[in-house]
Amino acid sequence: MREIVFLNGEFIDKEKAYISPDDRGFYFADGVYEVIRCFKGNFFCFEEHMERLKRSLSEIKINFKGIDTLYSICKNLISQNNLEGQYSDIYLQITRGVHRRMHSFPVENVSPTVYIYAYERKPSVNDLKRGVKAITRPDIRWLRCDIKSVSLLPNTLLFQEANEENARECILIRNGVVTEASHSNVLGVKTNVVFTHPDCNLILPGITKKVVFNICKDLGIYIKESSIREVDIYELDELFIIGTGNDITPVVRLNNKVINNGFPGTVTRQIQREYFRITYKKLGGETNLWF
Amino acid sequence: MREIVFLNGEFIDKEKAYISPDDRGFYFADGVYEVIRCFKGNFFCFEEHMERLKRSLSEIKINFKGIDTLYSICKNLISQNNLEGQYSDIYLQITRGVHRRMHSFPVENVSPTVYIYAYERKPSVNDLKRGVKAITRPDIRWLRCDIKSVSLLPNTLLFQEANEENARECILIRNGVVTEASHSNVLGVKTNVVFTHPDCNLILPGITKKVVFNICKDLGIYIKESSIREVDIYELDELFIIGTGNDITPVVRLNNKVINNGFPGTVTRQIQREYFRITYKKLGGETNLWF
Repeated sequence: MREIVFLNGEFIDKEKAYISPDDRGFYFADGVYEVIRCFKGNFFCFEEHMERLKRSLSEIKINFKGIDTLYSICKNLISQNNLEGQYSDIYLQITRGVHRRMHSFPVENVSPTVYIYAYERKPSVNDLKRGVKAITRPDIRWLRCDIKSVSLLPNTLLFQEANEENARECILIRNGVVTEASHSNVLGVKTNVVFTHPDCNLILPGITKKVVFNICKDLGIYIKESSIREVDIYELDELFIIGTGNDITPVVRLNNKVINNGFPGTVTRQIQREYFRITYKKLGGETNLWF
Repeated sequence: MREIVFLNGEFIDKEKAYISPDDRGFYFADGVYEVIRCFKGNFFCFEEHMERLKRSLSEIKINFKGIDTLYSICKNLISQNNLEGQYSDIYLQITRGVHRRMHSFPVENVSPTVYIYAYERKPSVNDLKRGVKAITRPDIRWLRCDIKSVSLLPNTLLFQEANEENARECILIRNGVVTEASHSNVLGVKTNVVFTHPDCNLILPGITKKVVFNICKDLGIYIKESSIREVDIYELDELFIIGTGNDITPVVRLNNKVINNGFPGTVTRQIQREYFRITYKKLGGETNLWF
């Protein structure tokens, strides 16, 4: 089937989409991105993704003036690729643009490269229901993980290690505490209190995390933005990872130990249920909530 | 003038060189690179660059089988672009290849993307003679700087800060000591001893640094692989940056202070002279050594 993507102002066949090797995204990972969830044609937290994108662009000083055009481009991609009735994602990447390779920013007016595409992605029902395995590794990433940049080599290397151990995520430890995971935020539960690393330069300010914070507020679940110590991790009652890519996924095995006897915990379940209600059910019109 | 580049097995016009947006170099900075100096058709330390490239590839598990083909490709690029009589650089980048975006490595046999080009680059004679200004900034990069990866966003951001202060390099400080600079190694001299950070996961094992080590051995200059503390940096007798891109460049101003009264030091000069003898003079046939 034809796949239509958006590249620098045009909707084109994916087969015809090409990037210059002089793109600063290719030479330097000099760009940022977002992934936006779309529930049967309805975007979730689109504005929040745009706000974070604007912040990422601003932090690395990419001057992109077209933020306001992105909503209709994304809508268009969903419709042109017949994804209105599907669960899908939008991938959106903006780099500093094309210029002869040099470390400093181009002085001439270089237009940022804008690449956006949409694709079907069904929820991982089994993972959501039963929970997944994760591993832990030292957090070797840079010190500006609050910027959602495409400088993701460490993330891919770390995720690959998880993959090779049949795990779904790699949870990262820096200075003795859990920061986040290779592409999700990490939350733990101990005696009904939810713990997670506070937003700072070491983690991405998750949009799903903000949603979960609101859910917890509504449900009367207390959240403490305090990092989980590596030495305490196996003593947690519950552990879960959250993000656009994995919704609210229980972690029931960590390295070679079980968490909560290997079952998703009750607090995780409560949050999951409410999250599904406002996303898959409300936006996606889903009647079967899988549990 | 036509510029011929090498991309995935072919010598083509640069204008016709295009990368897929699905290239893992574009999505994830999942690739490595080398820059090789060429003195009027004669490569410098080609084998050493190939050894480092092999190590970088191996560390991120890119399975590239064509290392032995690279020499003749590089030679060809020099000749096809009429650079035999010039001072030029080869830029060589290898990424994991093209695949639908996912964090884990492709399981199918994906061919690495190989992109190589050559370009004239004259030595920065003024900088070499008079020395340059540098600035210092916290080293915010990841913890595997020994891999020469294209995950270079931090390096470009840091170099840009130098650029905006009319400085030629950004010297990086981690845990109170100088690691290296945004794209060079850093060496300091105190009472005729050369100090530099030992090779480890925090710095790139510089090829020019190895050359300088050999030069020092020949000249009877003592090198101590011990890092320079930030608090001692202005007390150094001499400071210099080295690398394929800047040869042996004295640093005579750091932030807003002068080093060695603002003049290149005698140890730096000795090393520079010998380095020029075995490169510009011997390989390039240069008769004018600028000082």
